[in-house]
Amino acid sequence: MAKPMLQVALDTDTTAQALSVARQVSDVVDVVEAGTLLIYQEGMSAVRDLRAIAPNKIVLADAKVADAGGHVGKVAKDAGADWMTCINAATVPTMAQAQKQIEVQVELYEGWDNKERAQEWLDNGIDQVVYHQSRDAKAAGQVWGEKDLNSVKKLIDMGFKVSVTGGVKPEVLKLFAGVPVYCFIAGRAIHGADDPHAAAMAFKNEINRIWG
Amino acid sequence: MAKPMLQVALDTDTTAQALSVARQVSDVVDVVEAGTLLIYQEGMSAVRDLRAIAPNKIVLADAKVADAGGHVGKVAKDAGADWMTCINAATVPTMAQAQKQIEVQVELYEGWDNKERAQEWLDNGIDQVVYHQSRDAKAAGQVWGEKDLNSVKKLIDMGFKVSVTGGVKPEVLKLFAGVPVYCFIAGRAIHGADDPHAAAMAFKNEINRIWG
Repeated sequence: MAKPMLQVALDTDTTAQALSVARQVSDVVDVVEAGTLLIYQEGMSAVRDLRAIAPNKIVLADAKVADAGGHVGKVAKDAGADWMTCINAATVPTMAQAQKQIEVQVELYEGWDNKERAQEWLDNGIDQVVYHQSRDAKAAGQVWGEKDLNSVKKLIDMGFKVSVTGGVKPEVLKLFAGVPVYCFIAGRAIHGADDPHAAAMAFKNEINRIWG
Repeated sequence: MAKPMLQVALDTDTTAQALSVARQVSDVVDVVEAGTLLIYQEGMSAVRDLRAIAPNKIVLADAKVADAGGHVGKVAKDAGADWMTCINAATVPTMAQAQKQIEVQVELYEGWDNKERAQEWLDNGIDQVVYHQSRDAKAAGQVWGEKDLNSVKKLIDMGFKVSVTGGVKPEVLKLFAGVPVYCFIAGRAIHGADDPHAAAMAFKNEINRIWG
């Protein structure tokens, strides 16, 4: 079974903060994400700057695109991103246009649980999804559990590469033991840590222990 | 019946282009929107700059927020926005947190057609929705028609203030005659016109003719 990758989600307020964390963890992580909150603050310059300091990593623009997929896909690609997210609420044509420009991940928020629509994504060459717990749902008391595990397994069985995110901490990973998760995405657990490098290593060590 | 408002969606590549259009049309429109595509490019500085040149207009940050609603709502409010969009795929807690910071509009893309969930938005004080045709769906051949009209009417009957957008041109407005649409949103039909002021006036005149 392939080892899950590790992605750092840089949802900082400023590009400078993101660059500081990326500098500290880019020898550990596989994917460097310009988070949605950072893109809202700084725009695509955040993607360009992260690309500049992580030339050999996968760079993701977490734009959660809902519309104009071809346009934004090209903008993100030109800024140096390898991957870009679309929101599940985007129409299939939006995702398909985006996929022509850049590798698309579909972020699964409310209303995604429609197998026919997910199959259409696959039929249009989109085989990456991000399984999610939202920050606000977690704040309202949701925790990772069996239900999430089963949803992730079903998506993998359909043929998706599934990344997992939303309050992921090292101790959450063992829930997915034996499941070929594509990528674990950690945000504040890394960039909010006193020592981001040590925090990223804690994830990497746990991945190696479980999937190694 | 209240007259629908007119909103210009500034989905330009640069803030400078948006400012130029806003300068030309701000005596005609009611709402000045920093479009999603502009926010992706320039970040919240686009909202701040539009606020600066349209101090007496409603300014909308079309961020299509999917998560961290309270955080982004505060960021958008601090940048000078009066309203902010959330995507229909956001969880109710995300929208409710956003609404505590700023007036929220829910943008209706795929998977929104769930009356129970829409009722939850109302129950959380969110009474603005944006009825949409996506750019890419239109490119794939969708046109405005009876089905859209009926969807808009149903949302109004539920108690929503409904804005209408997506390839809206002056000749589309008469389809909604007799319906209390809250706001018509025009993007490229205004900012892509040779004379944005004349294009905005064509919308305003048609609104006055039909609802005046």
